[in-house]
Amino acid sequence: MKFRIDWSGRSHSYSDKEIETVVQIMESSDTLTQGQHLQNFEAKIKNFIGVNHAFGLTSAASALELIALMCDIKKGEEVIIPSHTYCASAIPFGRVGAKIVWADIDPNTFVISPDDIIKKITEKTKVLVVVHLYGLACEMDKISKICSEKNIILVEDCAQAFGAKFKNKRLGSYGDFACFSFHSQKNITTLGEGGCLVVKSKEKAKLVPGLRHNGHAPYPSREFYWKPAMGNVDLDIPGIWPYNFSMTEVQAALGESLIDRVDILNNFRRDRAKVFIDAMSEFPELVFQQTPHKEHNSYHLLPAFYNGTKYRTNNDDFINIMAKTYSIKCIVQYYPLNRYPLFVKMGFGEANCPNADHFFDNMISFPFHHWMEDKEFQYLIQSTKSALNELRGN
Amino acid sequence: MKFRIDWSGRSHSYSDKEIETVVQIMESSDTLTQGQHLQNFEAKIKNFIGVNHAFGLTSAASALELIALMCDIKKGEEVIIPSHTYCASAIPFGRVGAKIVWADIDPNTFVISPDDIIKKITEKTKVLVVVHLYGLACEMDKISKICSEKNIILVEDCAQAFGAKFKNKRLGSYGDFACFSFHSQKNITTLGEGGCLVVKSKEKAKLVPGLRHNGHAPYPSREFYWKPAMGNVDLDIPGIWPYNFSMTEVQAALGESLIDRVDILNNFRRDRAKVFIDAMSEFPELVFQQTPHKEHNSYHLLPAFYNGTKYRTNNDDFINIMAKTYSIKCIVQYYPLNRYPLFVKMGFGEANCPNADHFFDNMISFPFHHWMEDKEFQYLIQSTKSALNELRGN
Repeated sequence: MKFRIDWSGRSHSYSDKEIETVVQIMESSDTLTQGQHLQNFEAKIKNFIGVNHAFGLTSAASALELIALMCDIKKGEEVIIPSHTYCASAIPFGRVGAKIVWADIDPNTFVISPDDIIKKITEKTKVLVVVHLYGLACEMDKISKICSEKNIILVEDCAQAFGAKFKNKRLGSYGDFACFSFHSQKNITTLGEGGCLVVKSKEKAKLVPGLRHNGHAPYPSREFYWKPAMGNVDLDIPGIWPYNFSMTEVQAALGESLIDRVDILNNFRRDRAKVFIDAMSEFPELVFQQTPHKEHNSYHLLPAFYNGTKYRTNNDDFINIMAKTYSIKCIVQYYPLNRYPLFVKMGFGEANCPNADHFFDNMISFPFHHWMEDKEFQYLIQSTKSALNELRGN
Repeated sequence: MKFRIDWSGRSHSYSDKEIETVVQIMESSDTLTQGQHLQNFEAKIKNFIGVNHAFGLTSAASALELIALMCDIKKGEEVIIPSHTYCASAIPFGRVGAKIVWADIDPNTFVISPDDIIKKITEKTKVLVVVHLYGLACEMDKISKICSEKNIILVEDCAQAFGAKFKNKRLGSYGDFACFSFHSQKNITTLGEGGCLVVKSKEKAKLVPGLRHNGHAPYPSREFYWKPAMGNVDLDIPGIWPYNFSMTEVQAALGESLIDRVDILNNFRRDRAKVFIDAMSEFPELVFQQTPHKEHNSYHLLPAFYNGTKYRTNNDDFINIMAKTYSIKCIVQYYPLNRYPLFVKMGFGEANCPNADHFFDNMISFPFHHWMEDKEFQYLIQSTKSALNELRGN
């Protein structure tokens, strides 16, 4: 099916300057990986987020792989993860043998509920993963307090929320660990893939250069630079093998450049989200993420709960009209992970997350890529209104 | 130290056409990952190598991770790997719980010795990893026969040998599995990182799309495209969690373009290697890789064994003179893996590989990046001769 407004595989365009950055590295950089641009990118992220240790990687999933390893989870220890999130939030913790415990979302924010976290904590809870889904900050004051009191490792999955804040602090600066994604559809993308790992502890941060790059551990500088070998291969985590999650120089340089406009890109999304949400004020059957402050949300996506009970209609009816009548591709997102065959087969098919299930079964996610033209955006608004009116029987 | 001829972090330059390919995708591709370019790249690799199933990935290390998972290795089963190789050849097999058994090299080829493979096989041998190190094809006729007779899974690590052949068949077409690398220093590089996985079995190949991309398993095309979710997450390997090893569209498109000139690039290296080796014919103390046919070697690198016994000198003396007198950075490569702390700590510190140890302790690897100017290459030859003469006491 060909749509007038499709679900784009990409979020934003590149400026001439950004394209030139890539061309210049292709033309003249002596190395194309593990070089100076990666260091510059990491320095800039640290400054931007307000953290001490940040590492460019191939993806947020790779960052979560390393986080799961550094959490040192023993067989049977529990990791609390919202059931309503992308599968990569949970897979790495499954791999290291954690028992995954699904937490519910708050029906007003569509992100993890602090009250439900408290219900899901047991004596075996080692790690809590919160996901700032769709770009909205979880309630980090309450959540940080819970983790601190219960001595639980706090992981922030900021894959969708680069640049968003909770009470004036950037997301990623609250957790013991955090990850960011620069995938093709994210608010900024480093050529389609890319991610970042933030680590709070200085000791843990020392492990990352080896963990992400085949255990490479440089020897101190020495006159006979080749003795006993060019570099060492070692790792100070007993029993753990390293990975290769190296980010390329072009990705790093592009990322460095994009940080200069992430606030601009995010504000553009915030403005558009406001226009859309305001335009729907006459349709209370469409309920958007409750966002206490616009900076709390990077509006990576624009999801809504559709409550059509009064009109005996549901989200399927809406999505169908949008596709068939208006040629607009709305979708549903984040099938509760406990419902996927992968997690069922792995023994994590059970969840007590009624809000997540209810939300997913009634949700609509609107196309919201940054490069959507204004004309198309206006068409999206008008079509949405028309579809809602049609469902009301008007 | 600043060198006149440094050890470059990069192998080759990009043509205007290759740069334009990247710019065009940055400007206009609707998705920057998991798109049409990846499919085109994979089709072209299959045709080039002569295989049925090839998959673009983030690196050769990622390919080996997936291979190790697909080999279904039970605790205590053995994997034979040459001790003289890059650490990523072995790490994924360690991760899945294999007992790594180190094989020795042939002193004439510097790659795995078929005779030693036979010595290292036991009843528990499940997998053999051969590495076409420095670009030289291992003896695939003998090796294939051994694996076939003993029912051993054959893995070709072609990270350094893209395009090289063994008896008119491209490397990567012999094994049950094979990996290629397009890292910054490789004969062709997809923007600094990148790799490819080749799978012989149709059944195993079906597992790769999910294994490399978070278990994504598309539903069949359907009218209500969002029901029950946009896509499925599943995997048909009991107990195995998938990874995210997605290659970007720019890398794939660039790789596709580079395949058009890989034979040209490799022939350039072959010609230069011949010039260098011929120029050293008066110095029998320098012994190069025995290469039965030039197409058997992609000459990714140019290593030599230095036998200075007669002159009471060793490779350290040579490398030191090259650095101090001629400002040329020669290095030593592939510290036998059993000597690295990582492998010692993991219980793989023991090896019976006297040829590998002896070779490493006497080796020289000459700078050999493709973009080295002819003037510099001539200087490398003259300086090498002068250093060898100096070591002879002339």
